[in-house]
Amino acid sequence: MPERIYNFSPGPATLPYSVLEEAAKDIVNFKDKGIGLIEMSHRSKEFMAVADEAEALVRELLAVPENYKVLFLQGGASSQFFMVPMNLLGSGKKATYLNTGTWAKKAIKEAKFFGDIDVAYSSEESSFNRVPEEEEYSVDAASEYLYLCSNNTIYGTQFASFPEKGKMLVCDMSSDIFSRPLDISRFGIIFAGAQKNMGPAGVTLVIIREDLLDATPENVPTMLRYKTHADKGSMFNTPPTFAMYCVGRVLNWLKEQGGVAALQKRNEHKAALLYDAIDGSDFYRGHAEKASRSLMNVTFNLPTPELEAQFIAEAAAIGLDGLKGHRSIGGCRASIYNAFPEEGVKKLVDFMAEFAPKNA
Amino acid sequence: MPERIYNFSPGPATLPYSVLEEAAKDIVNFKDKGIGLIEMSHRSKEFMAVADEAEALVRELLAVPENYKVLFLQGGASSQFFMVPMNLLGSGKKATYLNTGTWAKKAIKEAKFFGDIDVAYSSEESSFNRVPEEEEYSVDAASEYLYLCSNNTIYGTQFASFPEKGKMLVCDMSSDIFSRPLDISRFGIIFAGAQKNMGPAGVTLVIIREDLLDATPENVPTMLRYKTHADKGSMFNTPPTFAMYCVGRVLNWLKEQGGVAALQKRNEHKAALLYDAIDGSDFYRGHAEKASRSLMNVTFNLPTPELEAQFIAEAAAIGLDGLKGHRSIGGCRASIYNAFPEEGVKKLVDFMAEFAPKNA
Repeated sequence: MPERIYNFSPGPATLPYSVLEEAAKDIVNFKDKGIGLIEMSHRSKEFMAVADEAEALVRELLAVPENYKVLFLQGGASSQFFMVPMNLLGSGKKATYLNTGTWAKKAIKEAKFFGDIDVAYSSEESSFNRVPEEEEYSVDAASEYLYLCSNNTIYGTQFASFPEKGKMLVCDMSSDIFSRPLDISRFGIIFAGAQKNMGPAGVTLVIIREDLLDATPENVPTMLRYKTHADKGSMFNTPPTFAMYCVGRVLNWLKEQGGVAALQKRNEHKAALLYDAIDGSDFYRGHAEKASRSLMNVTFNLPTPELEAQFIAEAAAIGLDGLKGHRSIGGCRASIYNAFPEEGVKKLVDFMAEFAPKNA
Repeated sequence: MPERIYNFSPGPATLPYSVLEEAAKDIVNFKDKGIGLIEMSHRSKEFMAVADEAEALVRELLAVPENYKVLFLQGGASSQFFMVPMNLLGSGKKATYLNTGTWAKKAIKEAKFFGDIDVAYSSEESSFNRVPEEEEYSVDAASEYLYLCSNNTIYGTQFASFPEKGKMLVCDMSSDIFSRPLDISRFGIIFAGAQKNMGPAGVTLVIIREDLLDATPENVPTMLRYKTHADKGSMFNTPPTFAMYCVGRVLNWLKEQGGVAALQKRNEHKAALLYDAIDGSDFYRGHAEKASRSLMNVTFNLPTPELEAQFIAEAAAIGLDGLKGHRSIGGCRASIYNAFPEEGVKKLVDFMAEFAPKNA
C-alpha cells in the first residue's frame, strides 16, 4: 500500500483500499478475461453477474423485502429531488417535507414543481443545527409521503431514529446509507448517491416499493419513470457500469466486516472519539445539538475563523486532509463514513489535543 | 500487456490500453498524492484540473467555438432524448426529426411529450438500412431544429455529411463523436454518451450553443435545465468524476494520435478493409446501403442465421469477441471505434476469408 492520506472529504470520500486495488486490476483485465471492466458490454454475462451481485448485496445487507425494487440510476440524489415528486405527486397531490439542511431545502424547491408541499418543520433559523423531535411537527393526513434527509452532511446532523407518524417515508440517505440497519418496510422510496458511503460518484441507489411504480402520471418521459428502470433491471439504457461494479465491491467489503450492524457499532465508536474530544475542551465547539449529532459528519468550530484556517492547514500538513467545513457554514468537518479508518480518527483526536493548548 | 481479446462490442467498447493502465494507477493513488482518484472531492483542485483538461480537450479536438458550452452530464443519451425538447420546445413549438433507427425513434417518442414533432423521413420500412439524401425530405420553416442521429449503431448506417437545410441541427453523436472533424457552428446541441468512442459508461457530453440556455420553459426542474449545468461548469451537483477523468485520458490519447482528422483517415481505412471483404464475396452481405455505410459499426449477414451463429462462435473462440448483431436485426456487427486496433480488423478479415469457402 502506498502512503495514504486520511481523507475526511464529505464525498467523494474514502473507500476501502482493497476495493481500489481490485478495481485497478479489473479495469485493465477483468478477471483475466483479456478485456477491461469498463470496455465490457453491459449486456455481457460477465457484467450482468456484476450487476446481479451488487443488487443481491444491497438486498442482503439492508434486508430489503421482496416487494421492493432495487435500482441503480444516474443523475445523483439531486435528480431524485424532482423524480420523487414527479412520479408520486401531480396536480392536487400533497406531500410533507422536513427542512433540515441544504439538500432537504433543494428537494423542497423541486417538489413544488409537482404538488402541494407542506414544510412541517425547519431548523434553518438556527443554521440547521438540529433535526426535529417527534412532537415538534405533524403530518397532514392528505400527504402522500413524509420526506426527510436522514443525515445532513453539511451541518453534521442525523436522525437517530426515523419518524413514527404512520406515514410512508421517502428518504434521502446519501450520506448514511449502509451505516446502520433499517426497517425498509416503513419507506416508500429510499435513495442515495453512491459517493459518500458506498462507492464512486456516478450512480444513485433507489429502493422503491413496487406498488409505487404505477403511480406515475402519463406525461412523464420514459427515462424519468421509475417503472422503466424497474422493468428492465436498471438496464433500460446503458448503466454506469464502473460505478455499479464499485458499489458491489464496497458492499462485499462491508459484508466481510460483519454487515451494517457491525458497521454501526464501529461508526458509533469512531464518532464518540471525536465528540468526546470536542466536549472535553472549551476550545472546540460542536455545531449540531447533541441529540442531533451525526455519526458520519462531525462539524465543529474553533474560537475564530483564523484559528480554523490554521487548524485545517496544519492538519493537512500531517496527512489529515479535507477538514474544511462546507462554505455555507464554515468551520471544520470530519467526514468519517464506513470506510474511514479508526486510526485516522485517533490521529485527528491527538492533533486536536495538541493544537488546543498551543493556540488557546 | 496481458493477452487482450479483440472486443467488437458496440458499447461499452474497446478503449486505448494506455488509458486503462493510467486509470488503474490513478484509482489506487492519484498522481502519487496518497488518495485514490475516485475518493477525491470533485471540488478539490486536483479534480478541478482533471475536469478542466477534459473540457479543454473537447474544445481543442472539435474546434468548439467560444459561444458554445461543453457539459458533462449523467443519464446517457437516452436522457437527452427528453432534455432536448424539454428545454427547446414547449407548447405550440415544432421540431423536425429524421427516423433513421432505434435511437432516433426513441428520441421522437420523447420529443412528442413536449411539442409538435414532424418526422420528415423514415427508413423503418427497409429495416433502417439507409439514411436520407438531402432531396428526400424537407424541413418546415417553423421547426425550432432538425434532429438526427449521425451514426446508427444498431443498423450500421451513418450520415457521411450533415444536412444542408439552413436549419439549426440537434444531433445524437453517441457512436461517432470524435471520429471526424465537425463544423460545430451548424449545431445547436450535440450530445453523446461516452461509452462508445470516448470513455466508460456514465457520462454524457453535451455541446450547446449559449443562446439556447435561456430557451427553457419556467416549469422545468433545476437538474433538467441545461443552464443549471452550464452556469456551474458541470459541478452543480457531484459529477461522475471517474468517467470524466477517463474521457480526458481518452481525448489526450486521441490528440497524441494526431486528432480527429487523423482518426478519420484511420477509421476510413479500417472500415474499408471490412467492407471490401464483404463486397468481394457472395457469402457476406452488408445490411446498409453503400452510400449510408457507417465507419463505426459494420453490419453484415451470412447466408443463414445458423451460419451466423457458427461464425460468431468460431470468431469468439479465436479472440474476436462481440460480433453478434443487435437482437432487433440479428446478423453480425463489427464495432470498430477510434480505439479499436487495425490488427483486430485484419484478423477478422482473415477469419472471414477462411470461414466463407469452408461453409459456402
